[in-house]
Amino acid sequence: MPIPAHLSLAIPDVDLPRIIIVGGGFGGLNLAKELRKTEAQVVLLDKNNFHTFQPLLYQVATAGLEPDSIARPLRKSLEGSPNHFFRMVKVTGISSERNEVVTSIGNLSYDYLILANGSVTNYFNKKDFRPKVLPLKRIVHALDARSHILQNFEQAVMTKDQNELEKMMNIVVVGGGPTGVEVSGALAELKRFILPKDYPDLDFSQMNIHLIEGSARLLNGMSDFAGKEALNYMKKMGIDVQLSTFVEDYDGDTVTLNSGKIETATVVWSAGVRGNVVEGLEESSVERSRILVDEFSRVKGTENVFAIGDVAMMQSEEFPNGHPMVAPVAMQQGRHLAKNLKKILKKEETEGFKYLDKGSMATIGKNKAVVDMPNGMHFKGFFAWLIWMFVHIMYLIGFRNKLITLNNWVWSYITYDKGSRLIIRTFNRKFMRRSTAINKN
Amino acid sequence: MPIPAHLSLAIPDVDLPRIIIVGGGFGGLNLAKELRKTEAQVVLLDKNNFHTFQPLLYQVATAGLEPDSIARPLRKSLEGSPNHFFRMVKVTGISSERNEVVTSIGNLSYDYLILANGSVTNYFNKKDFRPKVLPLKRIVHALDARSHILQNFEQAVMTKDQNELEKMMNIVVVGGGPTGVEVSGALAELKRFILPKDYPDLDFSQMNIHLIEGSARLLNGMSDFAGKEALNYMKKMGIDVQLSTFVEDYDGDTVTLNSGKIETATVVWSAGVRGNVVEGLEESSVERSRILVDEFSRVKGTENVFAIGDVAMMQSEEFPNGHPMVAPVAMQQGRHLAKNLKKILKKEETEGFKYLDKGSMATIGKNKAVVDMPNGMHFKGFFAWLIWMFVHIMYLIGFRNKLITLNNWVWSYITYDKGSRLIIRTFNRKFMRRSTAINKN
Repeated sequence: MPIPAHLSLAIPDVDLPRIIIVGGGFGGLNLAKELRKTEAQVVLLDKNNFHTFQPLLYQVATAGLEPDSIARPLRKSLEGSPNHFFRMVKVTGISSERNEVVTSIGNLSYDYLILANGSVTNYFNKKDFRPKVLPLKRIVHALDARSHILQNFEQAVMTKDQNELEKMMNIVVVGGGPTGVEVSGALAELKRFILPKDYPDLDFSQMNIHLIEGSARLLNGMSDFAGKEALNYMKKMGIDVQLSTFVEDYDGDTVTLNSGKIETATVVWSAGVRGNVVEGLEESSVERSRILVDEFSRVKGTENVFAIGDVAMMQSEEFPNGHPMVAPVAMQQGRHLAKNLKKILKKEETEGFKYLDKGSMATIGKNKAVVDMPNGMHFKGFFAWLIWMFVHIMYLIGFRNKLITLNNWVWSYITYDKGSRLIIRTFNRKFMRRSTAINKN
Repeated sequence: MPIPAHLSLAIPDVDLPRIIIVGGGFGGLNLAKELRKTEAQVVLLDKNNFHTFQPLLYQVATAGLEPDSIARPLRKSLEGSPNHFFRMVKVTGISSERNEVVTSIGNLSYDYLILANGSVTNYFNKKDFRPKVLPLKRIVHALDARSHILQNFEQAVMTKDQNELEKMMNIVVVGGGPTGVEVSGALAELKRFILPKDYPDLDFSQMNIHLIEGSARLLNGMSDFAGKEALNYMKKMGIDVQLSTFVEDYDGDTVTLNSGKIETATVVWSAGVRGNVVEGLEESSVERSRILVDEFSRVKGTENVFAIGDVAMMQSEEFPNGHPMVAPVAMQQGRHLAKNLKKILKKEETEGFKYLDKGSMATIGKNKAVVDMPNGMHFKGFFAWLIWMFVHIMYLIGFRNKLITLNNWVWSYITYDKGSRLIIRTFNRKFMRRSTAINKN
């Protein structure tokens, strides 16, 4: 659309090197914070005005937390840094030869550009059913999913037709990664502890939660132990896990698998992500929708363009196909690049990035979690779950968010209750017409 | 729209009198709760699945609270009452001769019908600018207002044009009742304590908050003392209060008053409400968009139809024009009608309603509030503000909400910070195009 004449990015021209950071996720935000006291002008660009703690998005989708518990205004994180600027704009591309980023309201030149705009939901070219499934990549997605699921139960109560009832009550989760496992587990707890109280006139033995995973195991990023134990937990919780199974089609009513069909109005799409690569990079610098970078996070074939986090593919002996697309990598690359940029500004030697694996974990439900320690140790159960809670609370950005989130968790731990069962985003106004997710990638 | 064949209200036909309550507000919800152990089938109908604590909506609009702090799932309030049913439907009318309510998915017969569907925003037939202003009657309104205001500041930062800048930063609040006063005060605190930190590159001496009131004073429902002191507070806080002033037009850019013009992209519409009267009542039973009821809340000219709360006009010597449209009246009428319905079911004598005025209060900001006591005493200041906090916390439905709200308030009292500055409902997707409120009355 045309750019209104009265608008411009309005970044003052000062006698400082300008560092533009695209994206306020784990990578970009940590980078920006580390650069606080640097002799440089730092411009953070994001289409949202907040940072999202994505590992807990599933809690918003399953009515456990409200958005403000897992999100924080980006401006707040930059407060008190006169050389830091935030602009809420969409970056549509870059022009590396002209050293400019292209945004929805004009271009901005940079001395150093850092692409940290993460990843988007991967629909594997299934464009036709993309508008019918519920992704879980952004807060609006989570709110849409919550409203969609709760609206279906409100509708189920009023449904005579057995086939329609199944559609309303069944939920299919696609993708057995952390998100898929965690959302399935949370849904199973909703089914067991919450929904029967809210909907006494429904028979919840008719509610089926299906988790569809293409590979032969769950939690591929984690140990075999974690995968097996997660599977055991899910079976105990009554979740129908179908491994080595692929979704071929979904028409809004029926999921077609290579192994059969499932009737459902709700398909949560956590099948994977792909790098959110902007326009304007050389083809040679992009591989499998990620940007090829060297050990200094420098984009192949450029001098002053860097990429970190999900969107970057930093290949190493340990990670021949690039580092895992997870928050810890993004955070560490963000902090490490900050150090290097300071060195570059001081004309000092830069250091290569080394990923410090602090282990990984996933939670399936109350007292149910799996943890892989960096030393190769694995464990599960209550203690693993405690660690999961602790780590997530600690990493939550902003003391207030921690407080509220803890508050919520303690509450729901004691009462088995979930707070946020409000249908607020009736993005489908006509309640009777089935809602369909609005994908915003 | 046609009713899908597979849907029906699906209320079991049992050998109990059926009481249908339309609306889960302060009146309807309290009535439903009081009827818990009654030998009757109680059906609560609401287009939302939650009860809204409307007195604190302005806090959601001004980023002080998240929706779940002031809303509670209606089903939760009815838990454990096997004869209570909730249906999330829109009631479009009633047929009193056939003893049926008409809903978006079919009719339902009643033995006793209680209309408790409150009030809607009153635009005083200014249909033309209705879509351009921001009402504050429902949670979606509050979220829309918050997103709208914050988006304008994000845009102001990038605005060169002085006139456009004014539009983005100025805010006009129409209506000097409690909502108008409270939202203006909260905006003034945002302007003073929060926004300058978030937007250091904006000059907030250019941000003007205008409160437009048609009558010659503020807080008409309250004492002259309260009105005067509120006015003093607002002047101290730098709010431009214009009394005896009317809005003649608003085109999305300019508010035309009988006394001049104001350039603004934001008009909060708290000018008043009118009864939400359903179709199908005799004209003679409706006066000034409220339903005429006797002292037993019975709708004039009916036997088994009742109305309580904002939508009901119960005239008495004390209240020749009906009781005030406030939460306490609705709550008391709800509880009182519950008692009478029990008596009616037992064929006992019913009692007339007497409103017990517990006083009224409004808060303008931190340590700034005005309280009218029922005994005619008035006071203001820190103590009044404490009482306001206490009463609102106490009335908040659900212990958890109280906890979270208290948590939020303590936090923002200590830090002057507000938690929820997230732009989530970008109901206008194209950020650059100015957002316009979506009225959902």
